[in-house]
Amino acid sequence: MDFSHSSRSRELLDRLDRFMREKVIPAEPVYASQLAGGADHTRWRQPPIMETLKSQARAEGLWNLFLPDGEHGAGLSNADYAPLAERMGHSFIAPEVFNCNAPDSGNMEVLARYGTPAQQAQWLKPLLGGSIRSAFCMTEPEVASSDATNMRATATLDGDEVVLDGHKWWSTGIGHPHCRVLIFMGLTDPHAPPHARHSMVLCPLDAPGVTVERMLTVFHDYDEPGGHGQVRFDNVRVPASNILLGPGRGFEIAQGRLGPGRVHHCMRAIGAAERALALLCRRARERVAFGKPLAELGGNGERIAELRMAIEQARLLTLKAAWTLDTAGPKAALSLVSQIKVVVPNVAQRVIGAAIQIHGGAGLSDDFPLAALYAYARVLRLADGPDEVHRAVVAKLELKAQQQHGDAR
Amino acid sequence: MDFSHSSRSRELLDRLDRFMREKVIPAEPVYASQLAGGADHTRWRQPPIMETLKSQARAEGLWNLFLPDGEHGAGLSNADYAPLAERMGHSFIAPEVFNCNAPDSGNMEVLARYGTPAQQAQWLKPLLGGSIRSAFCMTEPEVASSDATNMRATATLDGDEVVLDGHKWWSTGIGHPHCRVLIFMGLTDPHAPPHARHSMVLCPLDAPGVTVERMLTVFHDYDEPGGHGQVRFDNVRVPASNILLGPGRGFEIAQGRLGPGRVHHCMRAIGAAERALALLCRRARERVAFGKPLAELGGNGERIAELRMAIEQARLLTLKAAWTLDTAGPKAALSLVSQIKVVVPNVAQRVIGAAIQIHGGAGLSDDFPLAALYAYARVLRLADGPDEVHRAVVAKLELKAQQQHGDAR
Amino acid sequence: MDFSHSSRSRELLDRLDRFMREKVIPAEPVYASQLAGGADHTRWRQPPIMETLKSQARAEGLWNLFLPDGEHGAGLSNADYAPLAERMGHSFIAPEVFNCNAPDSGNMEVLARYGTPAQQAQWLKPLLGGSIRSAFCMTEPEVASSDATNMRATATLDGDEVVLDGHKWWSTGIGHPHCRVLIFMGLTDPHAPPHARHSMVLCPLDAPGVTVERMLTVFHDYDEPGGHGQVRFDNVRVPASNILLGPGRGFEIAQGRLGPGRVHHCMRAIGAAERALALLCRRARERVAFGKPLAELGGNGERIAELRMAIEQARLLTLKAAWTLDTAGPKAALSLVSQIKVVVPNVAQRVIGAAIQIHGGAGLSDDFPLAALYAYARVLRLADGPDEVHRAVVAKLELKAQQQHGDAR
Amino acid sequence: MDFSHSSRSRELLDRLDRFMREKVIPAEPVYASQLAGGADHTRWRQPPIMETLKSQARAEGLWNLFLPDGEHGAGLSNADYAPLAERMGHSFIAPEVFNCNAPDSGNMEVLARYGTPAQQAQWLKPLLGGSIRSAFCMTEPEVASSDATNMRATATLDGDEVVLDGHKWWSTGIGHPHCRVLIFMGLTDPHAPPHARHSMVLCPLDAPGVTVERMLTVFHDYDEPGGHGQVRFDNVRVPASNILLGPGRGFEIAQGRLGPGRVHHCMRAIGAAERALALLCRRARERVAFGKPLAELGGNGERIAELRMAIEQARLLTLKAAWTLDTAGPKAALSLVSQIKVVVPNVAQRVIGAAIQIHGGAGLSDDFPLAALYAYARVLRLADGPDEVHRAVVAKLELKAQQQHGDAR
Repeated sequence: MDFSHSSRSRELLDRLDRFMREKVIPAEPVYASQLAGGADHTRWRQPPIMETLKSQARAEGLWNLFLPDGEHGAGLSNADYAPLAERMGHSFIAPEVFNCNAPDSGNMEVLARYGTPAQQAQWLKPLLGGSIRSAFCMTEPEVASSDATNMRATATLDGDEVVLDGHKWWSTGIGHPHCRVLIFMGLTDPHAPPHARHSMVLCPLDAPGVTVERMLTVFHDYDEPGGHGQVRFDNVRVPASNILLGPGRGFEIAQGRLGPGRVHHCMRAIGAAERALALLCRRARERVAFGKPLAELGGNGERIAELRMAIEQARLLTLKAAWTLDTAGPKAALSLVSQIKVVVPNVAQRVIGAAIQIHGGAGLSDDFPLAALYAYARVLRLADGPDEVHRAVVAKLELKAQQQHGDAR
Repeated sequence: MDFSHSSRSRELLDRLDRFMREKVIPAEPVYASQLAGGADHTRWRQPPIMETLKSQARAEGLWNLFLPDGEHGAGLSNADYAPLAERMGHSFIAPEVFNCNAPDSGNMEVLARYGTPAQQAQWLKPLLGGSIRSAFCMTEPEVASSDATNMRATATLDGDEVVLDGHKWWSTGIGHPHCRVLIFMGLTDPHAPPHARHSMVLCPLDAPGVTVERMLTVFHDYDEPGGHGQVRFDNVRVPASNILLGPGRGFEIAQGRLGPGRVHHCMRAIGAAERALALLCRRARERVAFGKPLAELGGNGERIAELRMAIEQARLLTLKAAWTLDTAGPKAALSLVSQIKVVVPNVAQRVIGAAIQIHGGAGLSDDFPLAALYAYARVLRLADGPDEVHRAVVAKLELKAQQQHGDAR
Repeated sequence: MDFSHSSRSRELLDRLDRFMREKVIPAEPVYASQLAGGADHTRWRQPPIMETLKSQARAEGLWNLFLPDGEHGAGLSNADYAPLAERMGHSFIAPEVFNCNAPDSGNMEVLARYGTPAQQAQWLKPLLGGSIRSAFCMTEPEVASSDATNMRATATLDGDEVVLDGHKWWSTGIGHPHCRVLIFMGLTDPHAPPHARHSMVLCPLDAPGVTVERMLTVFHDYDEPGGHGQVRFDNVRVPASNILLGPGRGFEIAQGRLGPGRVHHCMRAIGAAERALALLCRRARERVAFGKPLAELGGNGERIAELRMAIEQARLLTLKAAWTLDTAGPKAALSLVSQIKVVVPNVAQRVIGAAIQIHGGAGLSDDFPLAALYAYARVLRLADGPDEVHRAVVAKLELKAQQQHGDAR
Repeated sequence: MDFSHSSRSRELLDRLDRFMREKVIPAEPVYASQLAGGADHTRWRQPPIMETLKSQARAEGLWNLFLPDGEHGAGLSNADYAPLAERMGHSFIAPEVFNCNAPDSGNMEVLARYGTPAQQAQWLKPLLGGSIRSAFCMTEPEVASSDATNMRATATLDGDEVVLDGHKWWSTGIGHPHCRVLIFMGLTDPHAPPHARHSMVLCPLDAPGVTVERMLTVFHDYDEPGGHGQVRFDNVRVPASNILLGPGRGFEIAQGRLGPGRVHHCMRAIGAAERALALLCRRARERVAFGKPLAELGGNGERIAELRMAIEQARLLTLKAAWTLDTAGPKAALSLVSQIKVVVPNVAQRVIGAAIQIHGGAGLSDDFPLAALYAYARVLRLADGPDEVHRAVVAKLELKAQQQHGDAR
């Protein structure tokens, strides 16, 4: 295992680090006040500071770093992008600043790998430029989406059209004023083998029959301006050429997309945990109770140690997953990717929760980024498969590996 | 130990249970939509359904059940009120319905025990009637309030006036349109013994010099219409007769108030946990993945068992604390009250968190009461002293008890 | 719920407490040295101090307290015996001192309830007198005994004889020089309904065909002089009258036996935890590192608090199980008995493990009773059904109860 | 970070792996029966199979692999030795087979680095050859040895002699029939700076005044034939030239010794955890209850996943500590070495404990190596500093690093 980063990655990290310190972190309160302060009593609009930051980031070459495709993006390996994603994770506004936010990053990756030139010209180009945003419609309200085969939405071929029907929710970013396109996943051929039944289809947000029924809250927060939408697809007709890669190949695309996407999420979550630990330590040093800094009271020191150990281990595990993806491919990384998907969000939730605790009520308020980071970590224990599903994957692969290993002895 | 409830308590529980099932639980979505749906784009107003429910509850004698004072309230012991508080805890709107919500309940208890007839006529009467609401101003933003002696606000005697100065926050309920009065705690005599320095003072919300600077969020939620305020007291002058019990007796009042208040909070949190477990079990039975109800998948069954055990134990511990308060007084109950203050909110947070997890994204949304209950449990790990302070109390008393016991051997 | 103890129970507890302090605890090192110090290089003999203590206990009426049968024993309810069992649990030699040790106590209870006068005369009388000891043969080495229906041993009727065949292990106490009889459980009628297939049969230890193949270690310890044996039954013929209650009624007996037996085990485990916490606190006060008693270092105080809370809750849960057994019977107590069977041994293991940790190496040595108590708690997580099986029982009953409750709404 | 192993390390691992599979693992029961089965009723002798295995290992060049000194040993870096130590950890008899067992390995390293040619000729040579064994005497029974400055034993210069006085315990290996020499640590100059007060002194086991008072048990096990001794030093006079490195330089030696020693211990503990997980998985596949393999019952699958994740993370953290020691030295590795010292033994204890649980009673018996591995992991949470002390180190360094980092921002 070699987790060292290339000189290019290290150089980018230096610049990214400076940009984060000088531009992004100080902009957080500006962003919050611009979001809150419109005359129209809505938070569903882009705070101007975000566009400013995006321009600056792009000008400095800190743009589309996530994209392994060297033609359209930075061309970094997962291992090389990992520390950059971690640094972005320190701030919940940072990923968008660098055009590296979910679900756009995953959608761009899909378009870069599987899109036709026409699809790339129409959708990938503006996404790469940061002028539009996108959504991904997979999860459904009526069924347990942890089992993807439960999916009921359909993408039915009808001549040279494909007809989308169904009910989706947790479509992140669909409320953003810049959102223009979504990727829809639905059942095309119920008689094909289980993982060859579904298609992914590009669908403009303004296609007739697409209705965003409502936006959903997470801990009472709409997470504007992107938000999370519940969407009805009612006889939505788009050209069959909008099907990505081909009918029935939805899971094939999903498999390629999910590994790196999970590594990105996890590295950002580690960044969030690091920021929380830094805030925790500062508060623990600066606040005094019973005549001592909190850091010296009771179990606080031991807790700090436990959190540091948990972060260190979670990061190493994620780097191993990234390195395995890079060097041995998604199949070899299957268990590790599921492992980080369980470990990292739980570690992040724990660290951020402890930071909240040491801040007292202030930790739950908007005076600190902790409540926002906590929600991010908490959601991540459900998004892209809940903990329980990933533990089941790890267990199955472990039992299989042990059996093979035992037989070989 | 006798944790059985009196026949009066059991009879009240039956009626309360029916009222909860028939009136309160079904009113939750009505309350939410009335809160959200005003033409004036504000949520800082009382949803009409709440006043309707209050009238009904009062008419049925389900009113002021918390108050051990038989003259002004129900006159129930802690042990007898415990199951009623638990039942109210199932719904975050229920406590107010029965005029048993914090901080009004605590404030009423203080006024009933320590208020002069004049104070009672002016403030207790309308509070008991549910026509006004109140706040409590103790925690301060600039210091670690887990150590009450850190308090910087002052209540200075000046002739027949007392002058209030300082900065308070997390004054729950102060944003409510019906809020009229608050209890302020501040330093009166810095040279007195540590626990005889502070006073509690009644202060009308509209007294000159009282400024609610801003309302605070908890997980991005303002928790309207009561909310949590940050309040500036700037040369606020009220009659010296507004001092409760007398100058320097603030901690004495606090001690009497805190034990029962914590039992109430904990029993409500157990109710919240029970509701979460019921929702969890229903979801686990009804949702299907990989061909089985979630209840039969992986560790879900074992988790349900662990949660049931945790709730059972937390409830029994709280009943013991209530019984000890009733039969042996607050000093004898000191350790137990701190124990429940640690155990119960953590159990509640864990149960509700697990219920969220099994609901997937829906659990974090407002489609279920889980996010609201989670915030309640999380806040409770900080309010009235963080976990860490209570663990320190328990440890100190344990070491002392063991030493005495050992010496006696 | 009324967990108060009768005046008789309280009076017995006072005397027991004195006996424990004055006689049993001081005898622990004597017992250990007598066990170790024989000229014959064996530890499989009764240390004389044990017989002395037994005589004294019997003389003081602290004898057979466990037996609910008022004719043969003390006639105490589960709730009344609970605090006595807890006190005995402080010392691993105490239960035998009071003739209340497993498996003899369970075997005596079975004989008292289901034994014929002849069986009682032959076996119950000397067991009650403490002159002989007994074993229980149920678990089998070749199958997962957590599922009792896996049992392969047979008890086949053949004329007026019953023939025992099979392989058993973890027969506790079978190595004791005083052991004379065992209760064997085996399959009699494979075609009967699942819980009417097995019989319990009294079998003298010296019956032809009974071979104790070896004694088993627990953490390298043979746990002499009783130990745990692996036993072969090879065409062992005993009179059919040795069948307890009748052929096929083994599970019926087991059901009645298990509830109280588990309460006894759990209360003893709580006693073990209390002793460990007392030792922990003493060590934490008396040992100094970095200029302070260990109790004031790092997280030690918080740990002490957590352990106290865990013990308090585990005890209350056990008392509730005892009270439910007494007032509503074994079926109503099913979930609670499984709950304590999971909760208590885990709490005990945790407390004792923490006590070991604070004692450093000394805690693992025989200078303190901690290693012995730890083994007891650890074994208890497996004996009488492993944690996992009991969690499954609790989950099943919880889901059923929630469904019924929900339907009732 | 580059955790890849050199080709030499990989080649050694291949050979070691084969030797473990073909020779060591099959020899475990032979070793156990030879240890138990002597005619003289003692277990304090070397089982002949051990000497056979040692000869074979030496013949195959699998000998002294731990020693970074290329002249006397294998000359491997910590990173290169790590996977070898892990593989040895699968069996509790393996380290001695390869002459890599504690405390001999640490003592040899000290002698190789700091020993004079005369000291090396007398003691290092036979230790490297495996013909004698050694002990280390530091911990003391009367004080909390977690704080090394508590040490009371003295090493007083008197002319050309040094006089050793004091009481030591947990001197591992001192009971071995081959043990000939020990390293004693004691106070030489109470007026020097705290870390320049103590000396390490070579002392023959048969020096007049050295008395092994008794051997200590761990979970009732003497851990023969090496064991753990309590030793009295009473006016023991050895030449002043026996002082290692020079008077007052004991802590200096300890610092250099401890980092690699802890990495070795941790890697062995990871090996122990891996073996336990393999046994667990096999048992979970092969045992059937309620109609299914245990692996498919309840939370067993999720537990397997959690254990795999814990081991993966613990190993990566240990590799990072090894790599940091190799590339940046002991001071830079201070926090990481303390981190692994907390994390790894706890993970190992947890994994082995879970393996015991799934084996039922068999897991606690000597039919499986689990009880022995559990004791190793448990002891390791105390040896070389208890968890709590290492957490305090990590916390202190973390708070310092955060402060510096914060200041730098």
